Amino acid sequence: MAYLNWKHETLQQLCLDAFQKFGFTEENAQIITDVLLLSDLYGIESHGMQRLVRYHKGIEKGMIKIDAEPEVVFETPVSAVIDGHDGMGQLIGYKAMNIAINKAKENGVGIVSVRNSNHYGIAGYYAKLACDEGLIGLSFTNSEAIMVPTFGRLAMLGSNPIACAMPADPYDFFFDASTTVVTRGKLEMYNKMKKPLPEGWALDKNGHDSVDAPDVLANIIAKNGGGIMPLGGSGELTGSHKGYGFGMICEIFTSILSLGMTSNYCMQGTKGGICHGFIAIDPSCFGDANLIKEHLSAYLNELREAPKADGKDRIYTHGEKEIKSMEDKIENGIPVNENTMIEILDMCNYLNMDFSKYFGNYTPVRETEVFKGNY
Amino acid sequence: MAYLNWKHETLQQLCLDAFQKFGFTEENAQIITDVLLLSDLYGIESHGMQRLVRYHKGIEKGMIKIDAEPEVVFETPVSAVIDGHDGMGQLIGYKAMNIAINKAKENGVGIVSVRNSNHYGIAGYYAKLACDEGLIGLSFTNSEAIMVPTFGRLAMLGSNPIACAMPADPYDFFFDASTTVVTRGKLEMYNKMKKPLPEGWALDKNGHDSVDAPDVLANIIAKNGGGIMPLGGSGELTGSHKGYGFGMICEIFTSILSLGMTSNYCMQGTKGGICHGFIAIDPSCFGDANLIKEHLSAYLNELREAPKADGKDRIYTHGEKEIKSMEDKIENGIPVNENTMIEILDMCNYLNMDFSKYFGNYTPVRETEVFKGNY
Repeated sequence: MAYLNWKHETLQQLCLDAFQKFGFTEENAQIITDVLLLSDLYGIESHGMQRLVRYHKGIEKGMIKIDAEPEVVFETPVSAVIDGHDGMGQLIGYKAMNIAINKAKENGVGIVSVRNSNHYGIAGYYAKLACDEGLIGLSFTNSEAIMVPTFGRLAMLGSNPIACAMPADPYDFFFDASTTVVTRGKLEMYNKMKKPLPEGWALDKNGHDSVDAPDVLANIIAKNGGGIMPLGGSGELTGSHKGYGFGMICEIFTSILSLGMTSNYCMQGTKGGICHGFIAIDPSCFGDANLIKEHLSAYLNELREAPKADGKDRIYTHGEKEIKSMEDKIENGIPVNENTMIEILDMCNYLNMDFSKYFGNYTPVRETEVFKGNY
Repeated sequence: MAYLNWKHETLQQLCLDAFQKFGFTEENAQIITDVLLLSDLYGIESHGMQRLVRYHKGIEKGMIKIDAEPEVVFETPVSAVIDGHDGMGQLIGYKAMNIAINKAKENGVGIVSVRNSNHYGIAGYYAKLACDEGLIGLSFTNSEAIMVPTFGRLAMLGSNPIACAMPADPYDFFFDASTTVVTRGKLEMYNKMKKPLPEGWALDKNGHDSVDAPDVLANIIAKNGGGIMPLGGSGELTGSHKGYGFGMICEIFTSILSLGMTSNYCMQGTKGGICHGFIAIDPSCFGDANLIKEHLSAYLNELREAPKADGKDRIYTHGEKEIKSMEDKIENGIPVNENTMIEILDMCNYLNMDFSKYFGNYTPVRETEVFKGNY
């Protein structure tokens, strides 16, 4: 499938215009755009432009409410619970993490749990917000059920990412990973590329291994059974119960503490019900924040300099690839695949926006045989 | 290799007597014994009686200082840093988690980071301490380097477990897992059983897959290279970088925040240098703690009741197996393998304790060909 590179500014302007056309204020459109494009800049293609269609469809069917105002429904000096009232996940997440950040600055720690939200993009964006303020940031979200618990055949947990960021030189520590082997976005990419899935990723509706992306995606959407394995695979020997357990920690900080919907109830009918969790911690609660930052930086450097496996020429620390990717994409543009471009074209038509204003003479070729799902 | 079951009370009395013989007070011997035997009762054989020899050797060579008093060296209403002054890990961990618990009760959250400690047993013990007080408990520890980072060939992180416990009915949520595929204790068990390791667990000194337990253990101890893979294996396709990242989160809450030794410096010469992290969170910071507990309990029940994979008859929730195991072992005794019994015999001889007082006429058979390592 063809990929074309587009300038960051081009995609940024498209998103800003589109989200304002959908009815968001300029300020809010900017936040949403920032979250989406940080994902593409960081090389997390599955959560960037490829995800636009989900927001388009979510708004169109009323799952995402443009004018919702997130409301703090419970609060202490170190904690809060927010009801997102079915608003746009990025805006709710941005507000919630900023509340956690302010509590951490005042009281050392801030923990915020959110219910009734929608997909908020990459978890790491919010961890990075805290990190950019000199804090440790953690971010969690549940999602539609996609992780099949060890020995099960029905998805009961979300992809349930855990992100953590902490200041370091020359790259901040930035870790953002689903507690499944991979995310649904990766399955969607393989589906769009018409490639079989790697083994050890997905289960069919009876709980057997499957490499059939359209079948797995269709079963997930129809809630027929099957889904993605926890990090660690499908058996205890390789630690399936560990990935499932880390997924449960995510569920605790999101749906459990907020009394929101657990993943097995999310994204049904026109209700998103997604829950998030945010933690900000001031390192100066543990001594000299500069010394702590230096200590982390030295360790990250030792990791990068450590002896490599035969045939490997580098060890990455988390956040390094993302910075390299961002430098590359600011310079050379952001690759977007043709199927995603068709989704963008459809969105432009829906919003009465001029696709050619952003993409000139380019016309994506529509391929009807790709399973499109109920995004 | 032969296993024999011994009554919980027998092993408890042995440990209590031995740790007092080593020079600990009765109260402290009780805490250490509780931590060790909870592991065996919960079915985590690798961290129970099998680990006694390490404490014996650690005390013998002066790595573990009997009379050390853990010292709070930095503190805020929600945080503390403790210098363990090379004391017994269980005692330092017990004190540190209790400080976190008290801070959580007073201020909603308590986070304590510890440096200069030693092995503290199972991480879950300390998470359970908080859970038993109605709180969410998290516990982390680094260790001697054993996890090889993705694309590396030298262990640079510890097994770096993350434990989390939270009140629920009828079983508390209790999750305790290394961020490696398995722990060193599992390798030691395979070594004692003289069985090859399962594939996908360990790396040789050049960074290639290995199933040779004695070779891997010898290389780890000699710091020749090799070690255990992160959860997710050795490649990015199955999420190696995710296990490595969760290991880094553990390192942040342990060695980084406490300005202690990162895993790659721990356990060298006569210095342990192990670091721990403890978090206690009061659920009532997020609303009605009873409703939150009910919400978690309902979800855990849904997980247990969810459809099973073909050929599987149950889905476990974390903490369920441990409770079942404890009930079984209180009733039927704790299985201890013959090699561990030899280590206990050696310890009794070292301490001038009468082995037969606990184990009657039983005499374990010494097998010299098993690689014993530098425990």
